Amino acid sequence: MSTTMTQAPQILDGKGLSERIKGEIADEVQAWMSRGHRAPHLAAVLVGEDGASRTYVDHKVRSCARVGFESTLIQRPADITQEELIDIVHGLNGDPSIDGFIVQLPLPDHLDAEAVIEAVDPAKDVDGFHPVHMGNLALGMPGFVPATPAGIMTLIERSGIETEGKHAVVIGRSSIVGTPMSLLLSRAGTPGNCTVTLCHSRTKDLEAHCREADILVAAVGRPGMIGADMVKAGAVVIDVGITRVEDDTAKRGYRLKGDVDYDSVAPKCSWITPVPGGVGPMTIVSLLRNTLTAAQAKLQP
Amino acid sequence: MSTTMTQAPQILDGKGLSERIKGEIADEVQAWMSRGHRAPHLAAVLVGEDGASRTYVDHKVRSCARVGFESTLIQRPADITQEELIDIVHGLNGDPSIDGFIVQLPLPDHLDAEAVIEAVDPAKDVDGFHPVHMGNLALGMPGFVPATPAGIMTLIERSGIETEGKHAVVIGRSSIVGTPMSLLLSRAGTPGNCTVTLCHSRTKDLEAHCREADILVAAVGRPGMIGADMVKAGAVVIDVGITRVEDDTAKRGYRLKGDVDYDSVAPKCSWITPVPGGVGPMTIVSLLRNTLTAAQAKLQP
Repeated sequence: MSTTMTQAPQILDGKGLSERIKGEIADEVQAWMSRGHRAPHLAAVLVGEDGASRTYVDHKVRSCARVGFESTLIQRPADITQEELIDIVHGLNGDPSIDGFIVQLPLPDHLDAEAVIEAVDPAKDVDGFHPVHMGNLALGMPGFVPATPAGIMTLIERSGIETEGKHAVVIGRSSIVGTPMSLLLSRAGTPGNCTVTLCHSRTKDLEAHCREADILVAAVGRPGMIGADMVKAGAVVIDVGITRVEDDTAKRGYRLKGDVDYDSVAPKCSWITPVPGGVGPMTIVSLLRNTLTAAQAKLQP
Repeated sequence: MSTTMTQAPQILDGKGLSERIKGEIADEVQAWMSRGHRAPHLAAVLVGEDGASRTYVDHKVRSCARVGFESTLIQRPADITQEELIDIVHGLNGDPSIDGFIVQLPLPDHLDAEAVIEAVDPAKDVDGFHPVHMGNLALGMPGFVPATPAGIMTLIERSGIETEGKHAVVIGRSSIVGTPMSLLLSRAGTPGNCTVTLCHSRTKDLEAHCREADILVAAVGRPGMIGADMVKAGAVVIDVGITRVEDDTAKRGYRLKGDVDYDSVAPKCSWITPVPGGVGPMTIVSLLRNTLTAAQAKLQP
């Protein structure tokens, strides 16, 4: 069907790039503070005891220290009421010492996540989940882009991957990854200007769509679902899926696995993200970037 | 390449359907007023002398009368300043007798259309152009859907066309048609659940993408660009393009032509919209629907 790539693929090293960008942000923070401003300040709200959520939030808090931000972690039990959570959000909205904050998702089922997201002041919504940010994104206007899609766009841009006129196939239509990713890849700009096909659970013949992709973005959360037979030779493959898979040989009892069957797919690709160490670290970098932007946009003393 | 359809295509009669829906809206307005409410009231702001814009606004004003709405037409010369136009918007935002209003686009080049759109109170933005509405649309949350995509979805739904799992190809990535159309067709729901490919000016091999479409939406504004060789046998073809083409034999000196070469394409389709009389009348119906919703959401006495 197609020629086999004989060269090894180039690794989209999100971990390495994220460290370099954190260094850049740290320098910017120092310059910002040397002009008399206080340190940017990110707050995170964590509800309940979900292990993956705790890990993500811990990473975010540690990254704040790395770049010279202040951070505040607000933890509440899983049985918090909607009113109590909204009160916390309103408090953070009104607190001039907080530049940006996130409410770690998913929330327990009895809470209305949409209402919580809409309660966040868009100027402090550094996750970019508020409808006005999604609207600005769709309209090509400035705003906070959700951290995962923003991180992927930075990874593509910094790796010098040409996107203009390419056919991108995005699998998964979630509000926080697949849908914004499809909008970013299709909009006028660099990176951008792709012809984009958005696939999801109701798509028929997913395999055939994937095989058409010059750029394939998998954001489903089904480990190893993308096999070598679904990837065109020379494609760029971005793996957003991060699932904990039980593994008794691993120290923590699990390992992280992406949507892409890396070992079989990698030899066919021009570029591919590993899991872990690909998209994940770039997500946190985008959150830090949004927080610095929020702090500077306020022009606080 | 494909079997030729021997049956005539079914016409997506937007004109006929829009008249039926106007009748339904008129009945709802009467019921609303019989409960002691005043008539819904739509205002339209028209800047400058563009002939097509005037025609559209005239249609909207006439349609208001048809369904029992009040309407107000505010006309200003093309040299209005940004400040004067924003003042008009703020006045309409604050006027409790106005339920919804539109600023007819395009605006003259010296005006900042984005700033005008953002100045409109979302609760009165019955065109659905404010970023918060686009965001709600992308997120699958309630809000005002832009009138043209909303009209197309209604046309599809009322015609009983099955969309689930179909491959839709949308040509054109504009903020008011192509992009929201792609989001509506891909989102979970009925109609919806399509696999959607969004094509635009930077797309390579547009013909090949179009030939894959079960549902083809053309929103470019290039008369006759979609020929029979670009359409799969049995496809549903939605033509959003409306361009004035000079025609000395026509009474007004021009006729309206769509993006689709109707005469050659129609015999291959299962369904097709004519131009005029397809998408255009449905757009106005959606504007009326949004205005009634705005009036009722206010629960004014």
